[in-house]
Amino acid sequence: MMAAYTRCADLNQPEQQAEVFVETCRVRYPLTDWIVGREALTETLRTALARYSNTSHHLGNIEIDFEGPDSATAQSAVIAWHRRHDGSEWTLYGRYVDRWTRTEQGWRLAERELRAAGAVGRDDSQLPPLGRASGVLT
Amino acid sequence: MMAAYTRCADLNQPEQQAEVFVETCRVRYPLTDWIVGREALTETLRTALARYSNTSHHLGNIEIDFEGPDSATAQSAVIAWHRRHDGSEWTLYGRYVDRWTRTEQGWRLAERELRAAGAVGRDDSQLPPLGRASGVLT
Amino acid sequence: MMAAYTRCADLNQPEQQAEVFVETCRVRYPLTDWIVGREALTETLRTALARYSNTSHHLGNIEIDFEGPDSATAQSAVIAWHRRHDGSEWTLYGRYVDRWTRTEQGWRLAERELRAAGAVGRDDSQLPPLGRASGVLT
Repeated sequence: MMAAYTRCADLNQPEQQAEVFVETCRVRYPLTDWIVGREALTETLRTALARYSNTSHHLGNIEIDFEGPDSATAQSAVIAWHRRHDGSEWTLYGRYVDRWTRTEQGWRLAERELRAAGAVGRDDSQLPPLGRASGVLT
Repeated sequence: MMAAYTRCADLNQPEQQAEVFVETCRVRYPLTDWIVGREALTETLRTALARYSNTSHHLGNIEIDFEGPDSATAQSAVIAWHRRHDGSEWTLYGRYVDRWTRTEQGWRLAERELRAAGAVGRDDSQLPPLGRASGVLT
Repeated sequence: MMAAYTRCADLNQPEQQAEVFVETCRVRYPLTDWIVGREALTETLRTALARYSNTSHHLGNIEIDFEGPDSATAQSAVIAWHRRHDGSEWTLYGRYVDRWTRTEQGWRLAERELRAAGAVGRDDSQLPPLGRASGVLT
């Protein structure tokens, strides 16, 4: 299901992408508040994907902690390349922090937060930080 | 075997790379017709890899659908960085669409198509599209 | 544990990052000699991570060969994006070559060597090569 999320994004299929989530999901992107519910999420995804002519999302570093048979938390790293309709490009280096739940249809996302490690090709000074410890030697 | 394909590419080992495929494989890259058979494929790989001094292929988002005990389809996303002998570089954001078959030697690729989401550092307007839905809001 | 290594790097947590290794580990980065022991490694990681304001490491292509119930070798590919405190950026395309061992606490790294396929944004002519076969057609 993690891979389906990215495949649907890159194919600009916001409705199918939203089906990875439960109806009552909560989702937050770097510059949004919490988006509540699959209907609101679908609208957000549709608007966001429409800004681009091409995107390519690449997942790695998947870590899953099962809290029980039907519930898990997970983290993964993402490289997300975007090309706007004017040809300009930017790349996000980020991290998904997830809560998954098992439904009758299989595992679905109950909560997803996308945290930014940084962005190349656009100003990322307004993005909330990843939570990196201070990197300066003292 | 998916990882072996990329490792052999980055080490410029076209013969070993072709061993990931069955003898009767069919393969298509963004700007080629279908290449039929492992011998033709090896030649294509040898020529293609020889254009570069360095490459680095990175797989993610692997999705596998088993159609039976000996057959599966799979998709995966790839970031492929290339440096030519003149030092110029380009990066492909793509997607492998595969058919795998189980042989006596293990799982092998029967069919692979590489679709491009986009390329940075070279003109990608001639590449066949990924199949993205129209991204423009109406 | 592979993913924990990268997560701790990107959060600048060298102590936690070093816990992925056994006490008697051996580690080599592209421009270092073999670093022996977790204490020396922690110091190396602390100094290295302190050079950056942001990093993002992305693993893929993981291949594991089990040599027995408690020992394995592994290879993986990494894209490592770095931003220095002055805002300059560089990206490493590399490959981890590992030896893992199972301890009472679980699988840990006994040996890790990071080989470079190439680097973008910094001179990589001094980096030891990946071991690519000669790419020039004859």
